[in-house]
Amino acid sequence: MMSDSIMGVRLGVAQAGLKVADQDDLVVVEFSPETRTAALFTQNVFRAAPVVVAERHGSVNQGHAKFLLINTGNANAGNGAMGITAAEKCCDALADMTSVNRSDVLPFSTGVIGEPLDADRIAAALPSAIHDLGADNWQRAAAAILTTDTRPKLRTIEVDVDGKVCRITGMSKGAGMICPKLATMLAFIATDAEIEQASLDTLLRRANSVSFSRITVDGDTSTNDAVTLSATGLSGVCVGADTLAFAEALSTLMIELAQDIVRDGEGATKFVEICVSGGETEEACEQMARTIAHSPLVKTALFASDPNWGRILAAIGRAGLSDLNTDDVSIRLNGVLIAERGARASTYTEEQGQEAMAASDLTIGVVLNRGQAEATIWTTDLSYDYIKINAEYRT
Amino acid sequence: MMSDSIMGVRLGVAQAGLKVADQDDLVVVEFSPETRTAALFTQNVFRAAPVVVAERHGSVNQGHAKFLLINTGNANAGNGAMGITAAEKCCDALADMTSVNRSDVLPFSTGVIGEPLDADRIAAALPSAIHDLGADNWQRAAAAILTTDTRPKLRTIEVDVDGKVCRITGMSKGAGMICPKLATMLAFIATDAEIEQASLDTLLRRANSVSFSRITVDGDTSTNDAVTLSATGLSGVCVGADTLAFAEALSTLMIELAQDIVRDGEGATKFVEICVSGGETEEACEQMARTIAHSPLVKTALFASDPNWGRILAAIGRAGLSDLNTDDVSIRLNGVLIAERGARASTYTEEQGQEAMAASDLTIGVVLNRGQAEATIWTTDLSYDYIKINAEYRT
Repeated sequence: MMSDSIMGVRLGVAQAGLKVADQDDLVVVEFSPETRTAALFTQNVFRAAPVVVAERHGSVNQGHAKFLLINTGNANAGNGAMGITAAEKCCDALADMTSVNRSDVLPFSTGVIGEPLDADRIAAALPSAIHDLGADNWQRAAAAILTTDTRPKLRTIEVDVDGKVCRITGMSKGAGMICPKLATMLAFIATDAEIEQASLDTLLRRANSVSFSRITVDGDTSTNDAVTLSATGLSGVCVGADTLAFAEALSTLMIELAQDIVRDGEGATKFVEICVSGGETEEACEQMARTIAHSPLVKTALFASDPNWGRILAAIGRAGLSDLNTDDVSIRLNGVLIAERGARASTYTEEQGQEAMAASDLTIGVVLNRGQAEATIWTTDLSYDYIKINAEYRT
Repeated sequence: MMSDSIMGVRLGVAQAGLKVADQDDLVVVEFSPETRTAALFTQNVFRAAPVVVAERHGSVNQGHAKFLLINTGNANAGNGAMGITAAEKCCDALADMTSVNRSDVLPFSTGVIGEPLDADRIAAALPSAIHDLGADNWQRAAAAILTTDTRPKLRTIEVDVDGKVCRITGMSKGAGMICPKLATMLAFIATDAEIEQASLDTLLRRANSVSFSRITVDGDTSTNDAVTLSATGLSGVCVGADTLAFAEALSTLMIELAQDIVRDGEGATKFVEICVSGGETEEACEQMARTIAHSPLVKTALFASDPNWGRILAAIGRAGLSDLNTDDVSIRLNGVLIAERGARASTYTEEQGQEAMAASDLTIGVVLNRGQAEATIWTTDLSYDYIKINAEYRT
């Protein structure tokens, strides 16, 4: 198996007692001196304190962050000025112990919203995390950042750039409150390639637009979404914004991490790709795909493996295209034509539909026949377990 | 108890075998000769065949419909040209039996989408429905139009207009795929007041904007939404668009019918009023109230009676007001101040929140402090039973 370590990146894990007893909930990521970091944050106007502080620190250190400081169990969101103070206190503690500036630390939090964050607990656990720092701790770190996720999401890819090889490793977490705008709740990616700040920003933004920005579990955009890409440069492989091999590898890795989040979505029993094509604009196609993805009736039919395509049709009809010619619309389930010209396809049989729906990986294809644009969204079904997880979370 | 009958209106109920065996699923409503009818229909672009036909017939008969023909068990939606033919065939059958024109019949259907409607079954049951016609059948008719609803929704109100009394009676059905645009899935209202067509249209549109247009169960706008208001004139009470007593009584009755739908929403255990005030525009307040109402995380917290206000805050933050000053926002749960200045209120205790959430009727009040506009939406929680009903419906 390929190693997931990245030259110039060390990770340390500890227990701060924020989540449950005897469980890792604190991660420190240390970067070598020349590392540059790009970051994207949530567009929810109620931005969590760590998002506000991480963005501020990033603009002070101009991409030269020395540490990421990540905790689970408490989102430090909805805590007003007190939350900002707590996030800064955590950064100060790590900065003091490692003799860097406060602004060299980017903080990230995930967990319950609206509970005060106990910065003292984090400060008390930091020495243990620092002592633990090592290049081979990605797997343990990926496990330590989870909330209601059931498994770590860690991906590694190697890229050949003009005959020289560099590596990209990333971890993500998700599960619920997943409908990222710009980025999703916590994904951290690192590479040993050497990349200028402007190129790094561009590469992250482009790859994000085809990965984390294309997934939704429940339509609820989090207050804490954040994704970072750090380049240590230690492989000596130079990469620019237009280095195609690297850009494609980064997109592949981020799509895998994003799809991992969907597959581990709260209560998910299906992985569903919704592709709307033949539209006039990508925006209109995306809006339609999202409307289908967020429909509770479509999601419960997916859970039941019921080819109840009338619910897909009803969602298409309310997706904002008021001049849609319904006679032009066709719907396919895993390639099986189920509806055309606004009605059930003449070739369709209920048995075909049931067979298609029985798969755990599904594609819903909608063709509008009014243009050349298309958009794809990845999502899940809506199951009893989603209710169970979210009705019992916090108790 | 007040009688619910309306002079000039008779209703007949029968079993066409469209739903389940031995259950009423067909209703004929007959109007006296001078009756005028106003109607509003769904904005879903996939309009069901009966919606298309009813609207066409309404424009031909200029408000002088003689019959409403309503079936449950099959929505006759997503059936293309074949659906239109079936709807017209049903109208023809009733028109032939009663010696009226086809366009004097307005058809309405509710049930599964995408299944061919068997017009012959309806035609075969029509003689029985016609034989059953009577003024006192509102309760049985309200029961016969239900799908996954658990109880009939029937309301009557008497209005004193300048010392003379008239009456309004209406029935509705809902349960799922409820997020009406203009109107909701099947509500039929009648009055014995005398009202000109233009006034009737205006009264219905205005009352609808504060009743059916303010409810949502699951955010899924139906293909079959329709609401009608018929005025027989037989009380001799003359009403215009600006007859305040009548307009208010009509709004009251339609709000009751709309709230009845929410209270009987699929799997609903809570009735929730969401009021957003202090906004710049009513549209922005309504969008925010709908975002909160549709959030699966808010809905599951409501089901759990968990005062997890962080989820409300996260929904507010993604509701489209990108320049919202979070420090100005406060949130109340049944009057209890839980959040202010973007954080938990200093006076708030978890016990207060739990006590407020334990009620089956809840008000979520959000104050934005940026203007004078406000909007209210009525909705439900999201429970195991919603999943059960919608994962098992059609099987």
